[in-house]
Amino acid sequence: MPDHRMITLLTDFGLKDPYVGIMKGVISRINPHVRIIDITHEIPPHNVEAANFCLMMAYPHFPAGTVHVAIVDPGVGGKRRALGMEFAAGIIVGPDNGIFTGILDREQIINAVELTNSEYWLTQRPGMTFHGRDIFAPVAAHLTMGTPLKALGPEIDPAMIVRLDRPVFPENAPVITGTVQYIDRFGNLITNIPAAYVGGKEWVITAAGVRIRGCHTYSDTPRGNLLALEGSHGFLEIAINGGNAQASLQVGYGLSVRVEITHSKKTDGKKEGDHE
Amino acid sequence: MPDHRMITLLTDFGLKDPYVGIMKGVISRINPHVRIIDITHEIPPHNVEAANFCLMMAYPHFPAGTVHVAIVDPGVGGKRRALGMEFAAGIIVGPDNGIFTGILDREQIINAVELTNSEYWLTQRPGMTFHGRDIFAPVAAHLTMGTPLKALGPEIDPAMIVRLDRPVFPENAPVITGTVQYIDRFGNLITNIPAAYVGGKEWVITAAGVRIRGCHTYSDTPRGNLLALEGSHGFLEIAINGGNAQASLQVGYGLSVRVEITHSKKTDGKKEGDHE
Amino acid sequence: MPDHRMITLLTDFGLKDPYVGIMKGVISRINPHVRIIDITHEIPPHNVEAANFCLMMAYPHFPAGTVHVAIVDPGVGGKRRALGMEFAAGIIVGPDNGIFTGILDREQIINAVELTNSEYWLTQRPGMTFHGRDIFAPVAAHLTMGTPLKALGPEIDPAMIVRLDRPVFPENAPVITGTVQYIDRFGNLITNIPAAYVGGKEWVITAAGVRIRGCHTYSDTPRGNLLALEGSHGFLEIAINGGNAQASLQVGYGLSVRVEITHSKKTDGKKEGDHE
Repeated sequence: MPDHRMITLLTDFGLKDPYVGIMKGVISRINPHVRIIDITHEIPPHNVEAANFCLMMAYPHFPAGTVHVAIVDPGVGGKRRALGMEFAAGIIVGPDNGIFTGILDREQIINAVELTNSEYWLTQRPGMTFHGRDIFAPVAAHLTMGTPLKALGPEIDPAMIVRLDRPVFPENAPVITGTVQYIDRFGNLITNIPAAYVGGKEWVITAAGVRIRGCHTYSDTPRGNLLALEGSHGFLEIAINGGNAQASLQVGYGLSVRVEITHSKKTDGKKEGDHE
Repeated sequence: MPDHRMITLLTDFGLKDPYVGIMKGVISRINPHVRIIDITHEIPPHNVEAANFCLMMAYPHFPAGTVHVAIVDPGVGGKRRALGMEFAAGIIVGPDNGIFTGILDREQIINAVELTNSEYWLTQRPGMTFHGRDIFAPVAAHLTMGTPLKALGPEIDPAMIVRLDRPVFPENAPVITGTVQYIDRFGNLITNIPAAYVGGKEWVITAAGVRIRGCHTYSDTPRGNLLALEGSHGFLEIAINGGNAQASLQVGYGLSVRVEITHSKKTDGKKEGDHE
Repeated sequence: MPDHRMITLLTDFGLKDPYVGIMKGVISRINPHVRIIDITHEIPPHNVEAANFCLMMAYPHFPAGTVHVAIVDPGVGGKRRALGMEFAAGIIVGPDNGIFTGILDREQIINAVELTNSEYWLTQRPGMTFHGRDIFAPVAAHLTMGTPLKALGPEIDPAMIVRLDRPVFPENAPVITGTVQYIDRFGNLITNIPAAYVGGKEWVITAAGVRIRGCHTYSDTPRGNLLALEGSHGFLEIAINGGNAQASLQVGYGLSVRVEITHSKKTDGKKEGDHE
């Protein structure tokens, strides 16, 4: 039932210009009945890390069969490949630049193709700058109409898909390092260190020269103080209860962080300062 | 015909992060056919007054049976209740913090419940921070599928629902005081004093130390001058013809205002200065 | 099949306030099944030039029969007419202030009316400030339900529809002048000079006292340098490779630009500086 499929859009195009509306028009001309849902269009321009995080957070909440379009594409018009991938959770299209790292870490890929068949594009000669309109939107619309992924281009080796650098987490390592992969509108700093790493242990995170002890909820820490916790997104996070950690620490994407396991079990009553 | 119902969303989540898109995904997994309309996601963070105003302005324009989801929720994860209410105009869900004051003032409540039945939630153990995803979105989706409100939790006494403080308006009082309940993108200051209070009379409003005579249209006042009028929203409003009253007066939400009836009928030709 | 029609919205209302949501509610009460797509609501306030550009870019990508609503309306409540126009590409409604110049230049008008029949409005007595809600949204919804354009008001002479001033392009003129009609989120300056004017020739554009030689792609110019090219939108554009031309030149809408044809064919190897 192609009619029941939906398309999600995630881009860095913003909502000021007509670009997103144009993509929806292109989709609607091919499939006037498909439902289109915006995940966000306010990814910081060209920030593939942030796009990867948002897509990873959002896709599991959509129906199986949904076609997800994710476009943060600093290499548009160059040699980067245009990808289509099929998972049990849905079909995903976008540029081959690491934006799909989080999905590839979590889902079994069924099939992957390079989108080279211009028969399913808006035009045989797409421009250099707007592959959202010229390639990704029409391809997504055709997928919702029942076009099989394999019709869109030659199969590729999933192992060759570009992935973002991820920190290495040796089992039982007492210290690991990672980076800030997303900063939300509240200035919370979301690292790429999985919460599972510290599960059930006491820990301290160091970022921008500040040491912060891991806690459990925002309300464990007085308002205005830095805190670190296992975020609901599954990663370690640095925040300020009632404040903005990004502004307070004056940091940004890619900030290096270091996590140290301080006690393997929470049987020690001694407390460290929240930060110093 | 649950298929024909729609859901509206009103939050302070913003459009930068994937939160709103995730709520729509959660809704779509339960009811893939429901239409979802955004009222706004740019309520100033935690501003329940502003959310109450926007919801009050918007809900009457939607079809009966619409499910409205309104989430500005500074108390999320604490003891505030999650509410579901049925009116002739629609069903409304959100936190019990005063956000529904305007609707409760205007509509007859048919039924109200506390949303405690986790069978209709996304998860049996919702997180502390994102009840939009975990409780309100799935509950709204189930309502559009025909789940009766009473299935979602125990009935509560409508008189116990939290309401925002509203100014008292004694009949024929010559002077009343209120506050600014909403500031729109043009910097217009919308008070919580009903236009009906001054209907057919002459009046003066005092705010931030400035006295402004009530007029009828923007064009009654020279460009750049402060003016006060009965807004189309049904409340007294302070504005600047071609300018920004908020920026000019350097004021914000909650500003106290005082309205005085100066003449009971408009038979007096004498004019006061626009402001002083 | 009115059910399959869709409505697009393009306004300067922004997304902070509930205005756009209210328009969608009004539409949904009349046609609960129509699909509504936002082109943009972030047109700079009252900027009819920018709205004209965005509408012109977007409408060709939507299905024939789509009803486009375009509202940037500094004259609301005054004497400007409310228009409905039928083209092969769709039906378009909005204020008669030049916002439709680009469409009128490209499409053959089939029929045009003044929207005076209040039977299809939200209210017999629309307010002075929000004709989007009171007139344009309900009229658009009725059009998707099959109401013929002619029922909405008396026919008018298409030649009398307001148009924006456009530069005159005498054939083979060696020099022409125009203005900046749109500035996108990247600070690219899009002029109203058609790319066809310089097609196949060498050219230089002068803006804000700077001379810039026309090139073919962003990558022809070092990062951080001003460049000028034939944009994918069909107009000459000034940009900075990896930068913001608006911020760098400190210019805005309406900036005057001058284009000079320097060689009629590209057989001359001599190069000019990118800018001076």
